[in-house]
Amino acid sequence: MTVQLLPVVNCDRLYQSLMDLADIGKLPGSGVRRLAFSPEDIRARQLVWRWMAAAGLSVRSDAAGNIIGMLPGKQAAPAFATGSHIDTVPKAGKYDGTLGVLAGIEVARTLKENGLQLQHPFEVIVFTDEEDSMIGSKAIAGTILPAAEQYDRKNQPPIQSRLQQIGGDWSQIASARRSRADMCAFVELHVEQGQVLETSGKSIGVVEGVVGLQRYMMTIKGAPNHAGTTPMELRQDALVAASHVVLAVESLAKTRPGQQVATVGALTVWPNATNVIPGEVRASLDVRDLSKAEVTGLVEQLKTQLGQIAAATQTKILIEPVLDVDPSPAAPRIQQTITAVCDRLGFSHLSLPSRAGHDAQEMGRFTDMGMIFVPSEGGVSHSEIEYTSPEQCAQGATVLLQTLLELDRGYST
Amino acid sequence: MTVQLLPVVNCDRLYQSLMDLADIGKLPGSGVRRLAFSPEDIRARQLVWRWMAAAGLSVRSDAAGNIIGMLPGKQAAPAFATGSHIDTVPKAGKYDGTLGVLAGIEVARTLKENGLQLQHPFEVIVFTDEEDSMIGSKAIAGTILPAAEQYDRKNQPPIQSRLQQIGGDWSQIASARRSRADMCAFVELHVEQGQVLETSGKSIGVVEGVVGLQRYMMTIKGAPNHAGTTPMELRQDALVAASHVVLAVESLAKTRPGQQVATVGALTVWPNATNVIPGEVRASLDVRDLSKAEVTGLVEQLKTQLGQIAAATQTKILIEPVLDVDPSPAAPRIQQTITAVCDRLGFSHLSLPSRAGHDAQEMGRFTDMGMIFVPSEGGVSHSEIEYTSPEQCAQGATVLLQTLLELDRGYST
Repeated sequence: MTVQLLPVVNCDRLYQSLMDLADIGKLPGSGVRRLAFSPEDIRARQLVWRWMAAAGLSVRSDAAGNIIGMLPGKQAAPAFATGSHIDTVPKAGKYDGTLGVLAGIEVARTLKENGLQLQHPFEVIVFTDEEDSMIGSKAIAGTILPAAEQYDRKNQPPIQSRLQQIGGDWSQIASARRSRADMCAFVELHVEQGQVLETSGKSIGVVEGVVGLQRYMMTIKGAPNHAGTTPMELRQDALVAASHVVLAVESLAKTRPGQQVATVGALTVWPNATNVIPGEVRASLDVRDLSKAEVTGLVEQLKTQLGQIAAATQTKILIEPVLDVDPSPAAPRIQQTITAVCDRLGFSHLSLPSRAGHDAQEMGRFTDMGMIFVPSEGGVSHSEIEYTSPEQCAQGATVLLQTLLELDRGYST
Repeated sequence: MTVQLLPVVNCDRLYQSLMDLADIGKLPGSGVRRLAFSPEDIRARQLVWRWMAAAGLSVRSDAAGNIIGMLPGKQAAPAFATGSHIDTVPKAGKYDGTLGVLAGIEVARTLKENGLQLQHPFEVIVFTDEEDSMIGSKAIAGTILPAAEQYDRKNQPPIQSRLQQIGGDWSQIASARRSRADMCAFVELHVEQGQVLETSGKSIGVVEGVVGLQRYMMTIKGAPNHAGTTPMELRQDALVAASHVVLAVESLAKTRPGQQVATVGALTVWPNATNVIPGEVRASLDVRDLSKAEVTGLVEQLKTQLGQIAAATQTKILIEPVLDVDPSPAAPRIQQTITAVCDRLGFSHLSLPSRAGHDAQEMGRFTDMGMIFVPSEGGVSHSEIEYTSPEQCAQGATVLLQTLLELDRGYST
């Protein structure tokens, strides 16, 4: 095996598999609905299982319902793994998740066609329920929630039953856990779901890591008075205060150095009547960055401003933490390898954080993780108009293949 | 009859009637619930009718259910009228509306006790349903809505049935209409429902008129993108735009000359999810001032700013009219008379607009109208803690009495 071989994946075959998988759960128009544990998800899992077997992978599923296809390595070494998910949000497109799974299978096919065998075992993983609980990747990472009730969902059977439907077993969930000793690297190919690559005209995104996330609930308390009889200077308008808060959040995210994002996405007004000055506002805050210190720093700076806004508007402002997910940095060695592969293949590239969650983030909790992004047209995702061209999909899969080959040379001893 | 008589009302008797009326619809604590057309409203109407008759008034009710008690004048002349309402909001206090009705009856008692008869007939009117439809005062003013369906209310029988319950008759509603030829002046005593008098330490408010009101619905359209993957500079955040709008409304109301008020009271966000950049916001706008030109001017200035905000935030902003109520100025002659009476009685006073709607505003559509305000403790109204002291109530009623006497001298020929 030499680098000069530069094997590439079969673009048509990869794209055909994306289209074939999209037939399962097809919605009127071009959308797809394949909720985790649904009959459509189960049919898609069966199809992917058959494709893995046909590509020469030996296939098993674990207690979390993850499907794991494996090609043996030349050595008894920890595995290289790739993969993603095939479950979708209620109104999805054809690429989110599926590209990473089908590119993994395409990599296996290409290795076989080119008579290549890695030093390390090579795994392709379909993670269970990425779009909601991430129970598949969390079981492998050992970051699973301890109580089954924490996976309860409205109008759905308990997690025990849902896992059973796909061949999993809640009582044995701990057995799905992996370690660095048996998976020494994980690389996931995914569509960007943003428009950074498209805007910059680059083909490949070298992911620096999956951002950390903190969520807060802010409560702004004013006084609900008559909108007619209360002069402007005597008001304690919670919505006026909340408006200052929304703009402070936007301004901090825009003006602090770095690429952090911060959003007030949900906001409710009480009593929410045309003729009553708003008495109370509740608003969510979502802050993401690759650096946890940056997220914390932004929130601390905001807290100072909340105090100033409260004083200026005669309101009280509370902020309470709701969620705190640590960033998951990509391994520098994998980022460097992806970059080198892109340069060798002549693909333009850009380093960027992933600001959405992915199965890779959980792999990064215990082993070396990397991610490869390909462009999403218009940055649109979780929509039937989600689109990445056949050539872009194939470029991403070829970068994945070459990255694994290159890593295999480096890691092997 | 000479001015030197200066008859005053009986403070204890007036206050006792306020407390007695508050027993009907009494809530736990000190609140009152006497919704128009409810059994409590009907019992209260019966009690007031008896009190009017006992005070020597001849009592009738019209097709809109208004109760009209009348003392004949010395001459066949158009009437002087006073009055207000005895229906309440769901959680009300003891003074809003009721003071105006019971002060009118107390004026009649005082006239009788002092052997006084006006040149003009004197009427005390209980207007139907001031707190919601204002159907009573609108029927008298001829400003009634034409279609019965426009008075439909959720979980309530049609207006025909509701009117019937209080002795009214929708099919004859036009017969309730009055004209300047049979009502040449209307003066209403009411609690301020604001804290202008209290803040300035004045006893009596000389109302300059009831403010006009315009309501609008604003729709701000952005793009609902992923709160993680959409960089700050590529966002079209409808809530950020809406926040600029809320602050622009507040700033215009505060910085334009005059005493206008403007409020964004209701605001809803779509899709209102923590992890989605707001795609659309709908927000109400309520603007009030004694000058219609001022209301229109503020809205025009806001429209210019909405265009600037839309351009700066990459959103679209629509503003649509919902309601347009003209101001109802108080007759200068009545304002001057109230002022002169206060000076003579030694009561401190202040001229101010009424920024809440009142039955008097509809009387002002066809005849000379005036209003007398007494202070509301803390400016609180529509609440069980609404409070005006016995002495303040009696001062207001005495000003009402003296104003009518003074007007009677002026208008009589």
